[in-house]
Amino acid sequence: MTDFFKGLSQVKFEGPQSRSPLAYRHYNKDEMIAGKRMEDHIRPAIAYWHTFAQEGGDPFGGRTFDRPWFDKGLEGAKLKAEVAFEFFDLIDVPFFAFHDVDVAPEGATLDESNKNLRVIGDIIGQKMQQSGKKLLWGTANLFSNRRYMAGAATNPDPEVFAYAAGQVKAVLELTHELGGENYVLWGGREGYETLLNTKIGQEQDQMARFLTLVIEHAEKIGFTGQILIEPKPQEPSKHQYDYDVATVYGFLQKYGLEKKVKCNIEVGHAFLAGHSFEHELAVASSLGMLGSVDANRNDLQSGWDTDHFPNNAGEMALAFYYILKQGGLGKGGFNFDAKVRRQSLDAADLLHGHVLGLDTLARGLKGAVALIEDGEFDKLLDDRYAGWDNGLGQDILGGKLSLADIAAKVQADGINPQPRSGRQEYLENLVNRFV
Amino acid sequence: MTDFFKGLSQVKFEGPQSRSPLAYRHYNKDEMIAGKRMEDHIRPAIAYWHTFAQEGGDPFGGRTFDRPWFDKGLEGAKLKAEVAFEFFDLIDVPFFAFHDVDVAPEGATLDESNKNLRVIGDIIGQKMQQSGKKLLWGTANLFSNRRYMAGAATNPDPEVFAYAAGQVKAVLELTHELGGENYVLWGGREGYETLLNTKIGQEQDQMARFLTLVIEHAEKIGFTGQILIEPKPQEPSKHQYDYDVATVYGFLQKYGLEKKVKCNIEVGHAFLAGHSFEHELAVASSLGMLGSVDANRNDLQSGWDTDHFPNNAGEMALAFYYILKQGGLGKGGFNFDAKVRRQSLDAADLLHGHVLGLDTLARGLKGAVALIEDGEFDKLLDDRYAGWDNGLGQDILGGKLSLADIAAKVQADGINPQPRSGRQEYLENLVNRFV
Amino acid sequence: MTDFFKGLSQVKFEGPQSRSPLAYRHYNKDEMIAGKRMEDHIRPAIAYWHTFAQEGGDPFGGRTFDRPWFDKGLEGAKLKAEVAFEFFDLIDVPFFAFHDVDVAPEGATLDESNKNLRVIGDIIGQKMQQSGKKLLWGTANLFSNRRYMAGAATNPDPEVFAYAAGQVKAVLELTHELGGENYVLWGGREGYETLLNTKIGQEQDQMARFLTLVIEHAEKIGFTGQILIEPKPQEPSKHQYDYDVATVYGFLQKYGLEKKVKCNIEVGHAFLAGHSFEHELAVASSLGMLGSVDANRNDLQSGWDTDHFPNNAGEMALAFYYILKQGGLGKGGFNFDAKVRRQSLDAADLLHGHVLGLDTLARGLKGAVALIEDGEFDKLLDDRYAGWDNGLGQDILGGKLSLADIAAKVQADGINPQPRSGRQEYLENLVNRFV
Amino acid sequence: MTDFFKGLSQVKFEGPQSRSPLAYRHYNKDEMIAGKRMEDHIRPAIAYWHTFAQEGGDPFGGRTFDRPWFDKGLEGAKLKAEVAFEFFDLIDVPFFAFHDVDVAPEGATLDESNKNLRVIGDIIGQKMQQSGKKLLWGTANLFSNRRYMAGAATNPDPEVFAYAAGQVKAVLELTHELGGENYVLWGGREGYETLLNTKIGQEQDQMARFLTLVIEHAEKIGFTGQILIEPKPQEPSKHQYDYDVATVYGFLQKYGLEKKVKCNIEVGHAFLAGHSFEHELAVASSLGMLGSVDANRNDLQSGWDTDHFPNNAGEMALAFYYILKQGGLGKGGFNFDAKVRRQSLDAADLLHGHVLGLDTLARGLKGAVALIEDGEFDKLLDDRYAGWDNGLGQDILGGKLSLADIAAKVQADGINPQPRSGRQEYLENLVNRFV
Repeated sequence: MTDFFKGLSQVKFEGPQSRSPLAYRHYNKDEMIAGKRMEDHIRPAIAYWHTFAQEGGDPFGGRTFDRPWFDKGLEGAKLKAEVAFEFFDLIDVPFFAFHDVDVAPEGATLDESNKNLRVIGDIIGQKMQQSGKKLLWGTANLFSNRRYMAGAATNPDPEVFAYAAGQVKAVLELTHELGGENYVLWGGREGYETLLNTKIGQEQDQMARFLTLVIEHAEKIGFTGQILIEPKPQEPSKHQYDYDVATVYGFLQKYGLEKKVKCNIEVGHAFLAGHSFEHELAVASSLGMLGSVDANRNDLQSGWDTDHFPNNAGEMALAFYYILKQGGLGKGGFNFDAKVRRQSLDAADLLHGHVLGLDTLARGLKGAVALIEDGEFDKLLDDRYAGWDNGLGQDILGGKLSLADIAAKVQADGINPQPRSGRQEYLENLVNRFV
Repeated sequence: MTDFFKGLSQVKFEGPQSRSPLAYRHYNKDEMIAGKRMEDHIRPAIAYWHTFAQEGGDPFGGRTFDRPWFDKGLEGAKLKAEVAFEFFDLIDVPFFAFHDVDVAPEGATLDESNKNLRVIGDIIGQKMQQSGKKLLWGTANLFSNRRYMAGAATNPDPEVFAYAAGQVKAVLELTHELGGENYVLWGGREGYETLLNTKIGQEQDQMARFLTLVIEHAEKIGFTGQILIEPKPQEPSKHQYDYDVATVYGFLQKYGLEKKVKCNIEVGHAFLAGHSFEHELAVASSLGMLGSVDANRNDLQSGWDTDHFPNNAGEMALAFYYILKQGGLGKGGFNFDAKVRRQSLDAADLLHGHVLGLDTLARGLKGAVALIEDGEFDKLLDDRYAGWDNGLGQDILGGKLSLADIAAKVQADGINPQPRSGRQEYLENLVNRFV
Repeated sequence: MTDFFKGLSQVKFEGPQSRSPLAYRHYNKDEMIAGKRMEDHIRPAIAYWHTFAQEGGDPFGGRTFDRPWFDKGLEGAKLKAEVAFEFFDLIDVPFFAFHDVDVAPEGATLDESNKNLRVIGDIIGQKMQQSGKKLLWGTANLFSNRRYMAGAATNPDPEVFAYAAGQVKAVLELTHELGGENYVLWGGREGYETLLNTKIGQEQDQMARFLTLVIEHAEKIGFTGQILIEPKPQEPSKHQYDYDVATVYGFLQKYGLEKKVKCNIEVGHAFLAGHSFEHELAVASSLGMLGSVDANRNDLQSGWDTDHFPNNAGEMALAFYYILKQGGLGKGGFNFDAKVRRQSLDAADLLHGHVLGLDTLARGLKGAVALIEDGEFDKLLDDRYAGWDNGLGQDILGGKLSLADIAAKVQADGINPQPRSGRQEYLENLVNRFV
Repeated sequence: MTDFFKGLSQVKFEGPQSRSPLAYRHYNKDEMIAGKRMEDHIRPAIAYWHTFAQEGGDPFGGRTFDRPWFDKGLEGAKLKAEVAFEFFDLIDVPFFAFHDVDVAPEGATLDESNKNLRVIGDIIGQKMQQSGKKLLWGTANLFSNRRYMAGAATNPDPEVFAYAAGQVKAVLELTHELGGENYVLWGGREGYETLLNTKIGQEQDQMARFLTLVIEHAEKIGFTGQILIEPKPQEPSKHQYDYDVATVYGFLQKYGLEKKVKCNIEVGHAFLAGHSFEHELAVASSLGMLGSVDANRNDLQSGWDTDHFPNNAGEMALAFYYILKQGGLGKGGFNFDAKVRRQSLDAADLLHGHVLGLDTLARGLKGAVALIEDGEFDKLLDDRYAGWDNGLGQDILGGKLSLADIAAKVQADGINPQPRSGRQEYLENLVNRFV
């Protein structure tokens, strides 16, 4: 045992009335709800980067955190892995997720980087076996190194594409080896800083090629997890091609990949794209594209990616509504792509952040289940569209009538429809009743 | 002649040094530039709604304009048509565009509305013949009447869909009859006010059905103009399905319509969707979807659709760059979807607004032509991506190499790419040199 | 009794487990909490405009509501008053608020308008006596009529200022007569549409003069209620001078009025100004300027004023925290400046909206009381700043040390402070524990 | 001479038709305009931080720039100073501005930092004498070091306040010694990350005390330059107390400091606060608070501080309009708080960025002078408000009439004002005529 979390013990469920400073009040992993353990609904994961690699810097100030593994190369990476698995145990969460550069230091060449990754990958593999912890997903960091400043797959220089390909190959294979259930691509630099030096069509072709190569390689090595794209509208780039779910869907279709890839939807990214979180989930679900979730929240007044821990149970209830309606996230889960604030210097703060997040998710889940079990919400929705289930509605949707047919029918039948209340306030009350 | 524009005469090109309060300083319709008359590049159109039907109201105040044709039913509509064609002549612009309800009053039934439309349609047809003015596009207003409060094609009530179909049939046919070169669909209510009462997937199926019916009817009646969707992210709805170009593209592909429809891109709608105008044009052009433009600007500090007249020549130069690179707008044009402010009460203000817009477009066009003719801008762009034209780049794009092949190549060749300057500041200087 | 609310009966508190479609689940007006009846903490008010005068229009569509009092002049206004007091009873709320034009139709002249106002004012007075309902505040609508399109007090035309003065005099006097506890000024047109035609300094002088006249008149007639300014950053104007609390404070100080006026803070206006609601309350409270609240919420994705009913108990808990810490709102209260959506056509929707709002406020109030009574939150806050209570902190704040003294002390004492955790995640957990 | 700018020579004015890649096309420092040399109007300054200390990092990636002075401590700082003065000469700009940490490395203690600052300060002083370059302003970086993570003056720990005081004392004195014409305070951490751990009133008292100490010290040492606050709404903090000009003004008044301090207004900060740049200038000027400008632009689609070089001559023309109307900036100037993009790796990019900025400013200045000299714009503005210059307007503003007097007058004279056109489109045309 390291002494990083000295004095802190495993967080337990103690119920809403608990007076402990550090306890789960709502998240009770073994509680059965809607036929499953709560943990199996949520499938929560710890993000290696935010929790262990984040330094507390921001654009106007440097590192505030003082972690004993910083600036210590491979030895630091080993210590970091020790602490990480201690944390997984303390917070009592079954999954984690990582980028290559979170777990192992980059080398001067791809070869050297991959060697480092292999060393730490083996350690992580052993720890997983010992602890029973699982990998929700792996991913390659194709945005921090200066070589990627103008994109990885979409770089004007094909050698950068090649380097990125080499990097992804290694991480995808490690992910597979570790039993990872998903592989994620987030294209933070796949976009542009200025249109003035950018060929959008060319770059999209490159991006599609890259994605195709990854899918083919995954199939070749027998990886049966989900391939996920994580949409984000901008930041670090001025514009990113994976803007939101709808944009990603259009891109995938253009290149015939829409059956091979799903989305990993992040709360804060939805917000930055001008959408509610539930919107992105509803859209993705309706397109068969809802694969996994990056749980966090964005500060409502900040125009950049803040990655706060979720604290709004109502928002999460709507999220779980769409997830439950599609039968759950399958191989996906809720990865905490959330970080403690740069002023949250203490080891305990890492626990408080995740407790906040898990209790919020648990409340959301319970609310959604209650809403669905009550039944009135869904009934109202079905009633509203009932007209489309037969008669005129089915004739139209079924393609039986031409525009002229329909127009003739309006005239013949004197159709002059009167609006009906949308009942929004009643529905909002109904949702609040269960959250 | 009516006396609405009493004292005002046709606006003429007088050059940048003119001291007249009302003159074109840059827009010179017959000036040849890049092989075409300026007017033939821009193909400007007057929007009937903003120019003749707008009342000057806003959410906190009612009508400020005092037009003699308001509240006068069909007689008012006739007077309005008189004034409209006088305006087209005064401002010396070849095209106009309209919604059904702009030109003719709605009746109590679809039948009655269509009769009114027929009466005014005939008058407009005669005036077009006399004046040589042309119809850039027609469209049906499927959003103002309360029957459409929950959508037209996407309404939960199929009778509303039917009514809308009847309305579009009439306007599409009138557009065809008048020689309209495009037909536009803007789905201001095709979206939702709250997800709580909305089935997104169901509504998108309805919307696709509607669009398909329109396309089929257009083909049946021999309409060879462009069918255009006008993207807008929100307002009046909280969320609209035609959010932006990329979203529209995904929707069209899903239903196999991407070859049948293009986009009419509005400056202010791009801004409200979190994009620059040039972004939307570049995306649309790269997808073969750039059909026409709604020229205006959005106030940069207002979070709603302001429809100011364009005043930024630099922005328009970038727009024309993409338009010229794709060989122009074809049957499309620049429709002034712009309105004078509600404090701009005078008839002369209508002229000043359009002069501002046309002079801005003319400066933009000239800037773009100069930028292209200079050649350095395009050369820099081509040079930046030159690596993709052969060797490794072509092997990758051409599908010759698998992920493993590429990774092996990185190792074998010791590929370790160094970044090159993106030269953004130089490019911005270069653009400003010509604007 | 009118039949507007036919079939609906008074909304009662039934507790969280109630299955009734229409009941208070949290708002229990007579429940004692923190030493007062819940109603006396919240002092809720119904906004006459949104509830009875709103037509359901938006910038892209007209009226959707079908109220029997619309378009019926003074007779309609009488019917509206009947329905209003029926509603106050059904929803069981003690206060209401109004603009002159909400209750009585405008006439062709100020005189005529004031006569109408007098007629309806008398009726309202009688109904107040009969029902025991009270007036939270009155206000004059100085923004809807076209005469105010360029401002009321800040109009370039002094006659418009004069007209506005006459209007305010009448409403202020009626407010006083009806025992109104506050008088509100919201300057929706006191700003500009374009700086190009605006003299900011001149307009601010006019605005200060107007406010001074109102204050003097209030004193003269013995009105002892609060005079409140309601900040809003924009809409309908591009920019409004009462941008936010801090801006209003600077304006008041410049003209020596900061002791005479407080703020009426609206949730949605805070959001549109780039602030959280609790920020505006905290700022106002720290300046002694927190007078009253306009309860609503803004849609998080819409860039305009949406006036939804509040549904976020967590947000309201933070609001009540600041209110309770300053000893309550005094003569102020929570006015529901919230409207049912334009698709919410039914009379019942008006009740559902207000129930949503009141239950949300009740949950917020209870959460804030629990947070304060628990004590840890305030203790942490006090501890964090404890260094300022004595020693160096007091020497600095007390003005005992010059810059040079302090610098010398840093050197002499080797001061080299180490940061301490800000504990944000723990605090967020703590708040969520009580909400 | 260092070889950093090898191959680059001094940028010269060559006029708009120049084909050189690197030349001033509009900025001609000695050109007389409106009675002064262009350079004396603009008083341009180079920001030491962006131009020499920026590393090209962003929240998702590290350093991209490869400067020979990075990571080299005091020796690096000397080399940096060499290069800086070479740049001032190459770009031919008379002023510069700096933070302490830009020019000299921080030490482990305040003492050590100040010693480093002294060493480099002396070198800079010599170089200023040799070159004739001048210091527009100095400032202390009270935000990057982790000790300031929770604020400097507003820190909960008075020792941090003390440390900051010691730091400012040193920089203020050096600024004075070097003949600096202004001293700037930008409070990037004077705000909060979460209200939950913040006492706003307490922090504002601290901030006012700090400012007072600085003012007193400046007076004591005989510094006669301007003390400037630079407003910014947020970033790095969630909320900063110096939100915008109006907020700063209220703060200064509260503590009786409004005569002692002016504002340094940054284009991008205005935008992030929801204002146009010209708005902030107009407000500041009307309050006597317009002291200096930080010239840049914010990307219109990015929600964070992007510090692009200015490229919009129209925006700058409106800025110069307000500056010229108040008789210029006095001791202030235009500091380029702008940075080359992180992909702009080359030394030449630093020149291109500043050329873009200076040419844009020169065009703006010329446009504003032409607009003013033409006279019509100001005449229209004066005419619009002419009613306030006598008669009723003067009686109202002069305080001769009470509210009751005015109301009586409206009735007696039958005042019923009719709105007049605001002529916005004409005014926009007029401005464009000169830009």
